Amino acid sequence: MPEPPFPSIYLDHNGTTPVDPGVLSAMQPCFEEAYGNPSSPHPPGRRAREALETQRARVARLLGGEPSEIFFTSGGSESNNTVLKGLVNPADASRHHVITSAIEHPAVLNPALYLAELGAGLTVLPVDGEGLVDPDAVREAIEARTSLVSVMLANNETGALQPVREIARIARERGVPVHTDAAQAVGKIPVDVDALGVDFLTVAGHKLYAPKGVGALFVRKGRSLTPLIHGAAQEGGLRGGTESAALAAGLGEACRIAEERLPRDVEALRAMRDRLQELLFASVDGLVLNGPREGRLPNTLFVSVPGLEGGRILEGTPTLYASTGAACHDRSVTLSHVLAAMGVPPEVGMGALRLTVGRSNTMEQIEEAARLLAERIEALRNGTGR
Amino acid sequence: MPEPPFPSIYLDHNGTTPVDPGVLSAMQPCFEEAYGNPSSPHPPGRRAREALETQRARVARLLGGEPSEIFFTSGGSESNNTVLKGLVNPADASRHHVITSAIEHPAVLNPALYLAELGAGLTVLPVDGEGLVDPDAVREAIEARTSLVSVMLANNETGALQPVREIARIARERGVPVHTDAAQAVGKIPVDVDALGVDFLTVAGHKLYAPKGVGALFVRKGRSLTPLIHGAAQEGGLRGGTESAALAAGLGEACRIAEERLPRDVEALRAMRDRLQELLFASVDGLVLNGPREGRLPNTLFVSVPGLEGGRILEGTPTLYASTGAACHDRSVTLSHVLAAMGVPPEVGMGALRLTVGRSNTMEQIEEAARLLAERIEALRNGTGR
Repeated sequence: MPEPPFPSIYLDHNGTTPVDPGVLSAMQPCFEEAYGNPSSPHPPGRRAREALETQRARVARLLGGEPSEIFFTSGGSESNNTVLKGLVNPADASRHHVITSAIEHPAVLNPALYLAELGAGLTVLPVDGEGLVDPDAVREAIEARTSLVSVMLANNETGALQPVREIARIARERGVPVHTDAAQAVGKIPVDVDALGVDFLTVAGHKLYAPKGVGALFVRKGRSLTPLIHGAAQEGGLRGGTESAALAAGLGEACRIAEERLPRDVEALRAMRDRLQELLFASVDGLVLNGPREGRLPNTLFVSVPGLEGGRILEGTPTLYASTGAACHDRSVTLSHVLAAMGVPPEVGMGALRLTVGRSNTMEQIEEAARLLAERIEALRNGTGR
Repeated sequence: MPEPPFPSIYLDHNGTTPVDPGVLSAMQPCFEEAYGNPSSPHPPGRRAREALETQRARVARLLGGEPSEIFFTSGGSESNNTVLKGLVNPADASRHHVITSAIEHPAVLNPALYLAELGAGLTVLPVDGEGLVDPDAVREAIEARTSLVSVMLANNETGALQPVREIARIARERGVPVHTDAAQAVGKIPVDVDALGVDFLTVAGHKLYAPKGVGALFVRKGRSLTPLIHGAAQEGGLRGGTESAALAAGLGEACRIAEERLPRDVEALRAMRDRLQELLFASVDGLVLNGPREGRLPNTLFVSVPGLEGGRILEGTPTLYASTGAACHDRSVTLSHVLAAMGVPPEVGMGALRLTVGRSNTMEQIEEAARLLAERIEALRNGTGR
């Protein structure tokens, strides 16, 4: 598929991010020199081991944990599965209970449903109209057999920041471990495992300009998990599989860059997102913001154009790469599980557009994107758009 | 850790392989252009999706399966765990039974032991003195509740090729699915899923000059598995997690190169391995070959110097990067589980050296390696080696 012959505007950074050129440069020497098996005592193995530990420390520095509390995984989905399945004994699932929320990523919801099929109790907390979990609902849901509370730090669609700190305080008072899927938050806002008070935290490399295929899991000292991938004694016995120094370098360098850039990234992303929001609300009558206005990731704008289909809108803006919030087939609309949980009406949610800015964007692109979208929506409303 | 100031000889290709430069080149454009999320319908997403499917077909071509039967994973350990845990319902483990062998990789043995802890029946087949599984033992071990037979194709230490074809025939006659961990075989010998008659086959990228962090699992059409990583609908629902087009390109290109080179690689590896074997047996009195002489990976030489410690031998050959077969601490020797299963006496196994050649080696290196080892062993025997 060739790139269209005019400049494109990538506004899908919550879907995935391109690899930062500095990250690629950091990986290159690892492929070439640290090619050994980190378990081997000879020099190529030791170089790989050293690279791995250097990078582990960088991930820990961004998150505020100790290097010994950071475990490399293949990505956010594996990290989430490791926590949920690692805390519930599947042979004795009915003695466990998991609390999560209706707006979690499928890599949390589906393992939770799987555990429920095995017999575990499961509470899926609702959210309000802005997509927020109520910490008091966590308090009410905790049972004697509750093994885990898992609530995401920031939602991928609305960007809504969940009250994880308060949830963690409540759960830990009752001795219940807390996990947060921070895949969308790390690199976009400051994330500190101690300030949050969580026991487990998921990082997905490809959401912060590292490659796909690498992630991390923070496991607080003193907490243990049954491995998801049993094997040799890699990653402190938590995760079998020969470790990739190159992928670790990708994630480590991405974390180092994120730490360095975070204050100015937050401001730059927010300025672009706010400008996009302002321009679209000024030019599109009846536009609806999905999710909260405050307490939201600085890069995320999730809006709905009632009565139109998001996919149809984007068909007419082929240089603009963004996401929708619903799938429309024939005359039926399937809202994303997030919009559905928020109680968004189908005629509103069908017109959802998720516009997520990132480091590669410029203010000029933002203004062009707003112009393209407003024109397209106008044309569809006038009946002149195909 | 700087490289020693003299040329090194890497004879640890069963431990891991360096990434082929052609593989790295194939990955580069994917990092830069196919950076999208393969689930996204916009051009960067579609480019990633297309790259993924192109590479899937290349893996299938090397193994003889259909592209729809190939699933990308993070590596051999994940592939193995996916099969073992995906076939046994952990809530009902006692209704299942798994047959495997004593010389499997820990990424098969440890999931099998985990399933046994959950209540599954487990038969760990012994091996003979050459490290070979007896197909008749599989026949005798099959019970009505047997859910899986998992026997590796080639052992990582001895290189012994297991009678997987015959085992598969026996198991399938009884309707029992068969898995083979082919991590060490793929790229070193021809591997064909139909000729073998297996239902599941594990590929580990980093054993065939692809990067660490990517592997594949062959799942024969009609067989299904409970996902190890539950999540969104990636990889046909078998494996959640945003797919990496770049890692897939690494594995796909490695498979393409392996297919192209296989006939001459087999001959070149065998010639180097045989020369190394010949030189060492000619110069080291009492040298013992661990494993079979015939029916062995063409690149693998696993020998023992009785009475000496493998680690002590390699300490004196710092330019030679190889593995041992035992860990010696104080006066105790812990043999590898493979040597132990073969019944190798500790005083023999403690002196085990695993010398595994690969594409990067030359015949000059082989002769130099033989000379270095013979000199070192001679010095240790004379008491002049430190």
